[in-house]
Amino acid sequence: MYAINVRDHFMIAHSFQGAVFGPAQRMHGATYVVDLELRREALDSDGIVVDIGLATQVLRETLAVLNFQNLDEMPAFKGRNTTTEFLARVVFDHVAARIANGAMGAQALPSDSGGGLQHMKVTLHESHVAWASYEGALPVRP
Amino acid sequence: MYAINVRDHFMIAHSFQGAVFGPAQRMHGATYVVDLELRREALDSDGIVVDIGLATQVLRETLAVLNFQNLDEMPAFKGRNTTTEFLARVVFDHVAARIANGAMGAQALPSDSGGGLQHMKVTLHESHVAWASYEGALPVRP
Amino acid sequence: MYAINVRDHFMIAHSFQGAVFGPAQRMHGATYVVDLELRREALDSDGIVVDIGLATQVLRETLAVLNFQNLDEMPAFKGRNTTTEFLARVVFDHVAARIANGAMGAQALPSDSGGGLQHMKVTLHESHVAWASYEGALPVRP
Amino acid sequence: MYAINVRDHFMIAHSFQGAVFGPAQRMHGATYVVDLELRREALDSDGIVVDIGLATQVLRETLAVLNFQNLDEMPAFKGRNTTTEFLARVVFDHVAARIANGAMGAQALPSDSGGGLQHMKVTLHESHVAWASYEGALPVRP
Amino acid sequence: MYAINVRDHFMIAHSFQGAVFGPAQRMHGATYVVDLELRREALDSDGIVVDIGLATQVLRETLAVLNFQNLDEMPAFKGRNTTTEFLARVVFDHVAARIANGAMGAQALPSDSGGGLQHMKVTLHESHVAWASYEGALPVRP
Amino acid sequence: MYAINVRDHFMIAHSFQGAVFGPAQRMHGATYVVDLELRREALDSDGIVVDIGLATQVLRETLAVLNFQNLDEMPAFKGRNTTTEFLARVVFDHVAARIANGAMGAQALPSDSGGGLQHMKVTLHESHVAWASYEGALPVRP
Repeated sequence: MYAINVRDHFMIAHSFQGAVFGPAQRMHGATYVVDLELRREALDSDGIVVDIGLATQVLRETLAVLNFQNLDEMPAFKGRNTTTEFLARVVFDHVAARIANGAMGAQALPSDSGGGLQHMKVTLHESHVAWASYEGALPVRP
Repeated sequence: MYAINVRDHFMIAHSFQGAVFGPAQRMHGATYVVDLELRREALDSDGIVVDIGLATQVLRETLAVLNFQNLDEMPAFKGRNTTTEFLARVVFDHVAARIANGAMGAQALPSDSGGGLQHMKVTLHESHVAWASYEGALPVRP
Repeated sequence: MYAINVRDHFMIAHSFQGAVFGPAQRMHGATYVVDLELRREALDSDGIVVDIGLATQVLRETLAVLNFQNLDEMPAFKGRNTTTEFLARVVFDHVAARIANGAMGAQALPSDSGGGLQHMKVTLHESHVAWASYEGALPVRP
Repeated sequence: MYAINVRDHFMIAHSFQGAVFGPAQRMHGATYVVDLELRREALDSDGIVVDIGLATQVLRETLAVLNFQNLDEMPAFKGRNTTTEFLARVVFDHVAARIANGAMGAQALPSDSGGGLQHMKVTLHESHVAWASYEGALPVRP
Repeated sequence: MYAINVRDHFMIAHSFQGAVFGPAQRMHGATYVVDLELRREALDSDGIVVDIGLATQVLRETLAVLNFQNLDEMPAFKGRNTTTEFLARVVFDHVAARIANGAMGAQALPSDSGGGLQHMKVTLHESHVAWASYEGALPVRP
Repeated sequence: MYAINVRDHFMIAHSFQGAVFGPAQRMHGATYVVDLELRREALDSDGIVVDIGLATQVLRETLAVLNFQNLDEMPAFKGRNTTTEFLARVVFDHVAARIANGAMGAQALPSDSGGGLQHMKVTLHESHVAWASYEGALPVRP
């Protein structure tokens, strides 16, 4: 199995609901350094997992929607705790949709035959001592 | 699959038995920077893998038993080579037992239905060029 | 010249005033990983720059005042842009005052004869690609 | 599952063929910081995954063949794009062959019974924001 | 003294002349992860050392001239060993000239009165075990 | 001012005397990841600060004396607390003596005219949250 990883970051404000969060129930914020890992069984015809330029661009565009935002005010997150693990899933879903729409090229499209990208992992580093991730198979488009 | 990771460290002295260890057969020591990764299929009702505060506390308490010790003098390690990979397993077993006893909360308890924490990985970094880990499924308590 | 460094972190929300800040004029946030470096010409009678336990504690207590806060609502920062470099200075001043009050022990007190701690540097890492610092001589108490 | 990881690096020149590579079609180069991870189910009789000295030596000898080379001029890579993911596979294959030849010792030999090393991952970090890897089961020698 | 640091990278091919370089006399290459540190005594009217967006842009534009190049073929480096420390100076000189031309804004201009940026340090990391830097005062424009 | 840095590590056991050290009064140990930084005003005739191969070798030979040792049993450290900052000085003095003896080559010799290496900094990282250093001018040999 081959994999490539690209890294970027975003900075947001938010607050949490629930006693388990203690002082993090107050409005605060975080820098998330994001690792996007993409895996496939065999390299494409250019000898790569995916065009690293496109992967970097898709990640940047995905994070741009969140960057410099107060997540408490974004309708998409209404009533949700935007924890690090939750946000890892949000980034995963956005990037997966972009891949399915061809944003990383035709050879990156997941397919029934096992070609294309197969698996993705999104890791959000919130400090030098804590991070969270979401990973899973990339859905094949019907 | 979701995961969170917390990091801490401990510092110990020890020596190894066996020609394979070369100069490490002498009394020496190490700093181990420890990563504790916990995975589960679905987030709990608070939108988290586990309370990161509790995970940090359980890890710290586990490492406190080893920190600033000469492992050669600890009865638990009598006749064993306390290698980095061996110690990763020791930390794994201690933390797994604490999780099973509810130290990370009721929602973290591994269960037959696949709820709760499912998988754990413990990595011990012994230098900038070497580390070791032990990982496995978290046992469901009978 | 000897130096020791201890590391901790804090997470805050804030917004900036001024066109130069672009989208950072919106409410957002950051994780700051903080390095506190302390220097002196000669080691104290215990063979150390300062008790690393006390240095860690003073740093943690200093950051606790800022951690999980919306800096826009703190009276101390009224009308100020709480940029990374500005906050480095804030941490510097708080820690310097604690040192002057003996929080790191009698041997750490800066003195006219050049004994004690002499110089401090506070670095705030806001991402994997950007950080800021403030450094200067530690004032000798009259 | 236990794992150990050792790290080394090599520096090469190369160029790529294909419009997807943009300016990287020109002769340029890279430093690759290499992580070699080896996994097995149970520790050997010395309480280790593998002799870390031997693992380090095998990795160094493998990278020495590539280090300070212009990969475009190496017959083995004729007509191939020596991308980061491709090179991860090259290192994987070389190290796997050395393991099969006993270079990491008799206890490291993969076996049908599941003893010995079972799985290997090779990661090549090409910058602070990009890396690639190849991983797979280690073949059991007939 | 305040400082800010931004990070970027570039990838090049080159070879060295002189027995001291051993195998590095062959055509090879490197990734350089670059840290650009800028210092000044007092913050500007926005409460910053310099617009971090401009600093990032000037660094990127400077490195773009070198990125994906064979330095042996660049006229500017004819007959020179483009060592890591030499390249740190090259980046320093290019960025210093851009600052003097106002590329980081009017408030960043070094001045006789000690206002503006005063000191710069450029560090090039060539691997996880080696880096080099050049630093010095920023010249005041006549 | 130019600088180069090389990195290596060593692993030791020791214990401390003095209530200030708390549990570190027990026999324990540490991994020290060591950065050796060398500075000079002008590059030598090869365009380098110093032969990085020689710098790496001198550092490795210096650390070999300490590596895998119980520092409490080394006569050189009798009655001394081998703290991180103290050990940084020990490494500094050993390397400085080797430089003065020509171990890094004739062009590296510190001289009255300001040629050769001028300044050295030795940093010992004892964990991901603590490190210490010693730095100073390199003595000119009479």
